[in-house]
Amino acid sequence: MIPAGPPVDDTIQRLSGVLSPGDVIVDGGNSNYKDSIRRAEALRSQQVEFLDTGVSGGIWGLKVGFNLMVGGNQAVFKQVEPIFKTLAPADGYAYVGPSGAGHYAKMVRNGIEYSMLQSYAEGFEILKAAPFNFDLVQLARLWNHGSVIRSWLLELAQAAFERDPQLAHIKGYVEDSGEGRWTLEEALAHAVPTPALAMSLFMRYRSRQEDSFSAKVLAALRNEFGGHPVRAE
Amino acid sequence: MIPAGPPVDDTIQRLSGVLSPGDVIVDGGNSNYKDSIRRAEALRSQQVEFLDTGVSGGIWGLKVGFNLMVGGNQAVFKQVEPIFKTLAPADGYAYVGPSGAGHYAKMVRNGIEYSMLQSYAEGFEILKAAPFNFDLVQLARLWNHGSVIRSWLLELAQAAFERDPQLAHIKGYVEDSGEGRWTLEEALAHAVPTPALAMSLFMRYRSRQEDSFSAKVLAALRNEFGGHPVRAE
Amino acid sequence: MIPAGPPVDDTIQRLSGVLSPGDVIVDGGNSNYKDSIRRAEALRSQQVEFLDTGVSGGIWGLKVGFNLMVGGNQAVFKQVEPIFKTLAPADGYAYVGPSGAGHYAKMVRNGIEYSMLQSYAEGFEILKAAPFNFDLVQLARLWNHGSVIRSWLLELAQAAFERDPQLAHIKGYVEDSGEGRWTLEEALAHAVPTPALAMSLFMRYRSRQEDSFSAKVLAALRNEFGGHPVRAE
Amino acid sequence: MIPAGPPVDDTIQRLSGVLSPGDVIVDGGNSNYKDSIRRAEALRSQQVEFLDTGVSGGIWGLKVGFNLMVGGNQAVFKQVEPIFKTLAPADGYAYVGPSGAGHYAKMVRNGIEYSMLQSYAEGFEILKAAPFNFDLVQLARLWNHGSVIRSWLLELAQAAFERDPQLAHIKGYVEDSGEGRWTLEEALAHAVPTPALAMSLFMRYRSRQEDSFSAKVLAALRNEFGGHPVRAE
Repeated sequence: MIPAGPPVDDTIQRLSGVLSPGDVIVDGGNSNYKDSIRRAEALRSQQVEFLDTGVSGGIWGLKVGFNLMVGGNQAVFKQVEPIFKTLAPADGYAYVGPSGAGHYAKMVRNGIEYSMLQSYAEGFEILKAAPFNFDLVQLARLWNHGSVIRSWLLELAQAAFERDPQLAHIKGYVEDSGEGRWTLEEALAHAVPTPALAMSLFMRYRSRQEDSFSAKVLAALRNEFGGHPVRAE
Repeated sequence: MIPAGPPVDDTIQRLSGVLSPGDVIVDGGNSNYKDSIRRAEALRSQQVEFLDTGVSGGIWGLKVGFNLMVGGNQAVFKQVEPIFKTLAPADGYAYVGPSGAGHYAKMVRNGIEYSMLQSYAEGFEILKAAPFNFDLVQLARLWNHGSVIRSWLLELAQAAFERDPQLAHIKGYVEDSGEGRWTLEEALAHAVPTPALAMSLFMRYRSRQEDSFSAKVLAALRNEFGGHPVRAE
Repeated sequence: MIPAGPPVDDTIQRLSGVLSPGDVIVDGGNSNYKDSIRRAEALRSQQVEFLDTGVSGGIWGLKVGFNLMVGGNQAVFKQVEPIFKTLAPADGYAYVGPSGAGHYAKMVRNGIEYSMLQSYAEGFEILKAAPFNFDLVQLARLWNHGSVIRSWLLELAQAAFERDPQLAHIKGYVEDSGEGRWTLEEALAHAVPTPALAMSLFMRYRSRQEDSFSAKVLAALRNEFGGHPVRAE
Repeated sequence: MIPAGPPVDDTIQRLSGVLSPGDVIVDGGNSNYKDSIRRAEALRSQQVEFLDTGVSGGIWGLKVGFNLMVGGNQAVFKQVEPIFKTLAPADGYAYVGPSGAGHYAKMVRNGIEYSMLQSYAEGFEILKAAPFNFDLVQLARLWNHGSVIRSWLLELAQAAFERDPQLAHIKGYVEDSGEGRWTLEEALAHAVPTPALAMSLFMRYRSRQEDSFSAKVLAALRNEFGGHPVRAE
C-alpha cells in the first residue's frame, strides 16, 4: 500500500522545518487529489513547490517499467524533469496538468483497474460453472495469444492459474484501497454513469460479508408474503 | 411454489383422455408464457381451449384478495368469466391478451417484485451500518404512514422486524423462482436495459455462494500485481 | 424542492440575532445530515437547540398525511412534541436519534424511493417491448388489487397512465435531488453493496445525456479491433 | 460479423451432398455452442465429423496473430491439427473440450471483452468530466507504459484518440453481437453473478434508445408525487 493521508501531512510537517523557498516536494503516493490541491496551496505560501505524482506499475515497476503522471506548476515540472526522465525513461512520465491532476489521473487509472479485474473474474467464474471441464491455464494462455482481450492482467491470471489451477488456497476475500471509492465519488459528483466501476466495488464489499443483511431482509419478506422457507442462522 | 413445467404437461396429458371439444383448461400456475402458447396451440387441435392465468397475491390472497391476469381467446374468457368474477371480484381480474399474455404479465409482475425487495433491503442494510442506532421497526412503521415509499411489502417488513428486530434468526440465503430469470431473459431478448432487475437477481445468486470464484480471481490478481496479501481458504 | 444547503445557514444566521438561550430551531428541510450535526453543535454553544426533522409525504402530505423523523436532544423533542403531534397525528412522527439521525433517516428513505421507481419503470418498459399489446393502465390497476407489488407509487403510476397511456407527452429526462447521491456516498463509506440504488441513480444521469462519451469510446474501439461500422455524429 | 445461425445450417445442408463418412467440417464462426452440439450430433449420424472452432483476433488476426479454441472429438482434432498449427502457430490453438466447448470458450471471451470495453469507456468519460483538461491520448500512451491496466485494447484506444481526440465524429451508438447476450444467459442458467457483463450489455442497449420509456415513467411519477416538473416530448 503506497502511503497516503495523515502520513503525508506528517512528513510535509516534519520537512517544513528544513525547507527553504524554491524547494520542491514530490508526492509519489496514492494521495487523494483534493489533499494534493490543498497541500500545494499551503506550501505555496512558504514558496515551497509541490508536485503530485501518480505512480503506476505496482511491484513490477522495477522489472517492467512504470509510469508517472505529474501535476502542479509546469515550470517546476521542467525543473525536476531530469529526475522523472531517469526514473521512467521514454514515454514513462508526463506533465498532465495543474496541482491535483497527477493524483486524479492515477485515481481514474485505478478505477479502470477495478472494473477490468471484475471483467476477467466474471468470465472465469462462468467457465468454472460451465457444462465443460475447461482448463483455465490453457484458455488464459490462448487468450494472451493474439486475442482482443489480451493484457498484462491476463498474463498475471495465467501465472496465478499455473500456480493454483482452482485457486483452492485463496479465499474470495477482497480489500479495496480508497481509490476505487474516490473514483466513484467523482463519477457521482459529475453525474457520470459508471455501472461497471460501481459493481466492481460492491462485489468486493460483498466478498467481505460473512452474511448479508440485505439478503436477510429478502429472505424474511419472501417468507412473509409467500411462505417461502428461510434458513436458520 | 405454484406448480409449473412438467407437472402442468403431465396434468394436461392426463386430462386429455377425458376432455371433449369445447372444454376449457385454466392454468393458474406460474408457467413460462412460451409453454402456455405451446400448450394452447396443441390443445386447439383437439378443440380444447386453454386460458393462461397469472395469479398474484401470494399466501395472503384469501385474506386481502388477489388478482388474475387472463390470456387466451377472448370469447372463451367471456364464457368462463363468472368463475373469475367469483374468485376475484371488482378489479380483481382482467383479460390481458392472447395466449401467453396472462403468464407474461404475471412474469413481469414478479420481476418488479424482485427489484422492489432489493430496494428495501439495501435501504435497511444502510440503516444497519449507519452511525446511528436506528430502530428499524419504528422507521418501517413511520414510512408506512403517508410516505412516498409506503407499500404492502413495507408493511410486511414492519411485521418481520417486530418479530425479530435484527433478523438474527434468519440466514441471508435467498432462492429465486424461475420468473426473475425469465423476465431478465425477455429484457435481453428485446434489448431493454433492466439494471435493477439484473442486480436483484445477482445478489440472490451471490447470497447462495459460500465463497465466490470471481472474488478468488480478484484476490489472486491483486496479489500478483500489487503484492496485496491473500487470505488462505 | 425542499430548501437545503446555504439557504438553511443563511436563515440560521439571520435568526441568531433574535434567538435567546433555550430557543429551538426545527429544520424540516432535506438537509444533509452532516450539515445538521454541524449546525446543532454550532447552535449549542449559544444554548440554542436544533432538531433535524426529515419530512416525508411529498405534495400529498396535506391530503394523505405525512411523517416526521426527528433527530436531536430527546428532552428538547419532548418539549416541542405537541407541535409534531398536531402536524402528524398517530404514528406520523417519531424521535429517531441524536442530531443528524432525522435527516439521515429521511435520506435513506429517499434512496429507497429511487430504487422503487426504477423497479416499476423497468417492468413497464419490458411490457412496452413485449410481444403483446398490453394496456398499462389495466395492469397497474390489477396489480394494485391484492398484488404483492401494490403500493402508493403504483397507484400514482396508474393515475399517470390513465392521463397519458403512452407517456407520449413526457420526455425521459430525470433530475436527481442530492439525496440519492448522499445515500450512495453513505453506502460507499460503510462498504454496503447497494447495486439497485447505484443503478437507479446512473440511469437518471444517463437520461440527461444527449450522447454518451462512454458509448463513443465503445463504438470507436469496436471499429478499431473489429472493423464494426460507426455512426457519424 | 463472422457468420453464424442459418447461414451455417445452410452451408452444412449444401455440403452434405458431397460429404462422405470420415470427412470433417470445421465451423470457425461465432456459432452458439448449443447449435454446435446439435450440428455435431446430426452429422455424426452420417459419420461426418464436426469441430466447433472459436476464432479470436478480430481483423488484426493476420497481422498480430489470432487463436483457435477447438471443440469436438479429440482424435479428429489430432487428425486435422496440422491445419490449426499452420494457421495459428505456437500457443495459438488448443483442443479445449468436446463438441460445443470451442464456441463456448469463444463466447465467454467475447463476454469479457464487453466488460473490458465498458471499463475503459467509463474511465475516459470520468476524465472528460473531470475538473482538469486532460489529454486522453497522453494518458492512454502513459498507461500503456508499464501500467497495470495496459492492454491491446488500450493501445487501440490510444490510436483512436490520436485520430479524433474528442471522438467528435463518432456517435455513441453501440451494437451488440449475440455473444454478450449468450454469455449472460449462461451466467443466468448457472446462477453466476455477472454484474459488470450485464451492465456493459445494458449500456449498449441504452445507447441505441432515442428516449427511454423507463425514464418517462420516472419523470411521470416524480411529477405525480413531488410536483417535479417534466420536460415535454
